[in-house]
Amino acid sequence: MNVLWIFAHPEPRSLGGSLRDEGLRTLREEGADVRESDLYAMKWNPVVDAEDFGSAAQGGRLIVGATSKNAFVSGELSEDIRAEHEKLAWADTMVVQFPLWWYGMPAILKGWFDRVFVKGFAYGVRRPDGRTSRYGEGALAGKRAMVLLTAGAPEATIGPRGVNGEINDVLFPLQHGTLWYAGMSVLPPLTVCGADRVTPEQYDVAAEALRRRLRTLSTSDPIPFRSQNGGDYDEDLVLRDDLAPGRGGVGVHTS
Amino acid sequence: MNVLWIFAHPEPRSLGGSLRDEGLRTLREEGADVRESDLYAMKWNPVVDAEDFGSAAQGGRLIVGATSKNAFVSGELSEDIRAEHEKLAWADTMVVQFPLWWYGMPAILKGWFDRVFVKGFAYGVRRPDGRTSRYGEGALAGKRAMVLLTAGAPEATIGPRGVNGEINDVLFPLQHGTLWYAGMSVLPPLTVCGADRVTPEQYDVAAEALRRRLRTLSTSDPIPFRSQNGGDYDEDLVLRDDLAPGRGGVGVHTS
Repeated sequence: MNVLWIFAHPEPRSLGGSLRDEGLRTLREEGADVRESDLYAMKWNPVVDAEDFGSAAQGGRLIVGATSKNAFVSGELSEDIRAEHEKLAWADTMVVQFPLWWYGMPAILKGWFDRVFVKGFAYGVRRPDGRTSRYGEGALAGKRAMVLLTAGAPEATIGPRGVNGEINDVLFPLQHGTLWYAGMSVLPPLTVCGADRVTPEQYDVAAEALRRRLRTLSTSDPIPFRSQNGGDYDEDLVLRDDLAPGRGGVGVHTS
Repeated sequence: MNVLWIFAHPEPRSLGGSLRDEGLRTLREEGADVRESDLYAMKWNPVVDAEDFGSAAQGGRLIVGATSKNAFVSGELSEDIRAEHEKLAWADTMVVQFPLWWYGMPAILKGWFDRVFVKGFAYGVRRPDGRTSRYGEGALAGKRAMVLLTAGAPEATIGPRGVNGEINDVLFPLQHGTLWYAGMSVLPPLTVCGADRVTPEQYDVAAEALRRRLRTLSTSDPIPFRSQNGGDYDEDLVLRDDLAPGRGGVGVHTS
């Protein structure tokens, strides 16, 4: 197993930092090869702009999707982006770890996806039948991903009817709209609640839960998101009437 | 009306840039006072780190929430953050405009919220009864916000059963988990689809829709998100059993 661990916390001496260390140690004990992108340590630049795209961005108006594809194809993407592509090509599994800030990723991590998941690499690839490879298909299909979160919110508040929204609903843009969109199989997330307040006993429970999840990374069942091109969506990419009939919400996109 | 317009697009000569210009012109014609935070033009730094917090971050481990509150109270937050606080204090209405990237905000905008919405300013304020002011209450209560989006996806794909998820579900972390969390009333979003492909006729339709929405900014009904402390949630902040009984999903948090 080749695991790429993405870590996006400004403080290594945090709950998140301890879990990262625990996780890397566990994976190595299990015989996995591990590489890390520690975004704060790398001083990762999260801002997409013309400087990412070399000569592809010269002249006129910047159209991000098309220009990023041209730069990807011509090999002119910034070196830091190409280094992440090389890691992703090597990896069969990705762990994405972050503290939940405003119910999403810290900007440094969002900007990792914005800059690394460029057109031609992670999306915008067509199948022979003209449909776009997307949601379960694409360049990253066959790889697995898991989100590892630390959150200040108490567990009940991110449960099914908690005031903050159920955690899988909150993570829909990342788990479905990014990872699954690009083709990756997404394992259920592991959320450690009560960040900044955990006791040593609670930490032990969280670390054991993490070890258990990492030992089954290659075997556990992914979230059963529906494939775009598997027959569940019509030509307009709307869910067929006979599936989850009469319902809406993000839950209908899971079979 | 005092409107703060947040704009997060790398290319002013884009569909988004044209709509921004149209929007600012319309508001001024209507007699509104307008200020803008054009994040790319400002070269906004989106990355939270210890340098934001002055002497509050000196020594030991960085605990982002507590440290940001100390720096806010002592007036030691970075100057660029304090400038945004001053704009927010001035504004009664905020427009948040961005191109939808990976079903979320561009990193530069996510990092505007990460760095500006610090503890003590936008969250973490207690009521006399000990409950936290959150979701409909808080320092920003009484202000209005509206999201203005440009998206490459066709309209049906972000509709109720579209493959990308309904746009309000996709925006839940921003509209509910950030704006409403901090107390702001959130108007329904305006989404302009087909970015990079709109015809002049389609642009005219979009611009007219925008003008109509801006003329009713102060009078139109916000999304009826439930208040945390209004009686709909129990002591664990879980929705009462008799409301939307048996259901889950983000939709249960709207009354």
